[in-house]
Amino acid sequence: MTKGLNAVIAQGGGPTAVINQTLVGCALALRESGRVGGILGARHGVRGITRDDYVDLATLPMPKLDRVAVTPSAALGSTRDKPDAEYCQRIVEGLKQRDVRILFYIGGNDSADTCRIVNETAARGGYDLRSFHLPKTIDNDLMENDHTPGYGSAARWVAMAFMSDNLDNRALPGIKIDVVMGRNAGFLTAAGALGRKREDDGPHLIYLPERTFDADEFVNNVAEVNSRLGRCLVAVSEGVKGRDGQPVMAQLGAAKEKDAHGNLALSGTGALGDALAERIRQELGKGGKKVRVRADTFGYIQRSSFDVSPVDSSEARAVGAFAAALALKEADSSSITIQRESNNPYRVSFASAAFDRVAAKTRVMPREFMHADRPDVTDEFILYATPLVGELPVVEPL
Amino acid sequence: MTKGLNAVIAQGGGPTAVINQTLVGCALALRESGRVGGILGARHGVRGITRDDYVDLATLPMPKLDRVAVTPSAALGSTRDKPDAEYCQRIVEGLKQRDVRILFYIGGNDSADTCRIVNETAARGGYDLRSFHLPKTIDNDLMENDHTPGYGSAARWVAMAFMSDNLDNRALPGIKIDVVMGRNAGFLTAAGALGRKREDDGPHLIYLPERTFDADEFVNNVAEVNSRLGRCLVAVSEGVKGRDGQPVMAQLGAAKEKDAHGNLALSGTGALGDALAERIRQELGKGGKKVRVRADTFGYIQRSSFDVSPVDSSEARAVGAFAAALALKEADSSSITIQRESNNPYRVSFASAAFDRVAAKTRVMPREFMHADRPDVTDEFILYATPLVGELPVVEPL
Repeated sequence: MTKGLNAVIAQGGGPTAVINQTLVGCALALRESGRVGGILGARHGVRGITRDDYVDLATLPMPKLDRVAVTPSAALGSTRDKPDAEYCQRIVEGLKQRDVRILFYIGGNDSADTCRIVNETAARGGYDLRSFHLPKTIDNDLMENDHTPGYGSAARWVAMAFMSDNLDNRALPGIKIDVVMGRNAGFLTAAGALGRKREDDGPHLIYLPERTFDADEFVNNVAEVNSRLGRCLVAVSEGVKGRDGQPVMAQLGAAKEKDAHGNLALSGTGALGDALAERIRQELGKGGKKVRVRADTFGYIQRSSFDVSPVDSSEARAVGAFAAALALKEADSSSITIQRESNNPYRVSFASAAFDRVAAKTRVMPREFMHADRPDVTDEFILYATPLVGELPVVEPL
Repeated sequence: MTKGLNAVIAQGGGPTAVINQTLVGCALALRESGRVGGILGARHGVRGITRDDYVDLATLPMPKLDRVAVTPSAALGSTRDKPDAEYCQRIVEGLKQRDVRILFYIGGNDSADTCRIVNETAARGGYDLRSFHLPKTIDNDLMENDHTPGYGSAARWVAMAFMSDNLDNRALPGIKIDVVMGRNAGFLTAAGALGRKREDDGPHLIYLPERTFDADEFVNNVAEVNSRLGRCLVAVSEGVKGRDGQPVMAQLGAAKEKDAHGNLALSGTGALGDALAERIRQELGKGGKKVRVRADTFGYIQRSSFDVSPVDSSEARAVGAFAAALALKEADSSSITIQRESNNPYRVSFASAAFDRVAAKTRVMPREFMHADRPDVTDEFILYATPLVGELPVVEPL
């Protein structure tokens, strides 16, 4: 072991089901190289660095690391802190104190931005640090990436939840609205379509945040499906926006909190689903007609389920190992990315991009993934997402 | 095959993840006996009988039946219709038309009551019919049963959802409220405790419908846990009631619909969780203190997940076969029940009870399952419920 070459690994932003695969993949690759002295896991992201609060990842026994890897949600703890100049200075001081020369930050676009500014602060202060951002987000909204670790497992959860709820809605017909996570990108909501097999399988309508949400059109669409099939299952992104570009959730006064990055908290409330259900109840219930309308908001379990996608899990692990190898090759600071080399057979490769191509930017659903004429996804999206979620169960209603 | 001995199987009430195991278990036992001519599956419960709308279960190929068995949610469709005298007459007419002499109705306490009155209507009319109620409910609230098919799988889902959410809440600390299904019985909400291992694992507070819910106590309890652990994960039953015995949900004006059995629809809205979160936000946020509060309402996927409990699945199957055997032995009409013979090793037996001991009655959590001094369950409950949910995953946060 090279005395002096110390590394910190930290996790930021919303947890995923496979974020600890990336942590363990990175830590093990560093351990196996024999070239890194201290491998420190910072508790609660960059905050742990400022508080000298670490887990020693160099000496954790393998059986324990194996269990950590399959544990959903950030094992080290996470943070939504957005470091200002003074905070960044404290992070760099913390790294100096432990003579840390490599920083691995596992997170989304906000974490990539944190990684970028910490790296710049160190450079300006003349401190020799290389920083690597490792992609992770269920939203699948990182630029320069075909997809991101964490998405496949969350998409699998959403696909199976809609398979379940389609069967439930078929057994006891009515109008059912399910609200899915995703602030600006509709990838996760779109995954609701992946389990459809029969012509009348739901979700019958899919509302994405990339398309303007019109409440009157919504009512008409639901009424049309309901009169045709006698039921209607709807997928709605929590991030759907009105004509003014503002989240419908904000118009309802339902988003109560902002995080340090200025994002309105859209999750953790059923208000959007309830408001849409009430609207349907009023419009379709005119003249005393009885309509059965329910809304569920899938909530936080979307991002930390146990039934992970095998592809997602192994890619999350590989991203960690790739970042470690890059760091050990003395590569420049950067953000790790995933490219799809081929869809059939499915094959990916890893690369890296400059921070400013990823940090604080948002990738949304490309036009070809969204149906032009109705609120739905296209076959291109299905082809894109199918390999990411793993095999789905076969169901047979009568 | 004895010409003339025809049977109908139907499914009523809320679906479960294993209700089709009971359907297939019953149908296969009838087929294998060689003594039943027609085996008809009524679509949407008793409604299918009045409309002569059936699936022929006698001739369905085995591979298809195998797929039906593992499909969550009532494969034949379900109903919440509550038959009045005239409706019952139409059911009996429907049965006569097909010369059906055995009726199997898979459902909860409302379905048991339907079974009872259909049976009485037939008897009064001098029509020779024997009826069997096969237990099914995620609420676990049937009298005369140690537990009911459907509960174990739903409880497994709830236990794992709290394991996930506990890890999420640990990674990004705050106050999190999760609302669980269960109108009058707290068994499903209580299952949130089954995945706790470490001393600080949540849910830290469990509010059951059997205990009066006091909003001020709730605020105090959450504040105490939050100041002790820096976070608080709460399980709340959708059915919690105030001092007046009315559901808190009804006081909020959030329960919009009633079913034919007069039950307020408590599920399919996030209103209870949102109201409780807002109350916490106001009380703990006094003086401008920042508190992170979120609420999720688990909703309908609780009752039709794919990751079923193996014990629940095999018992659901066995209940179907037991009912078929009982009917073929020319036993009197009754409701099938499950008794626990031993807890270690876990072993059950099946029996049957008169309709009026089960129908339209509700079993709630016994006193010894609820902690006397705080909103929590007891070790007795954990011992009771553990064998029902199957093995839970091992997690290892750092």
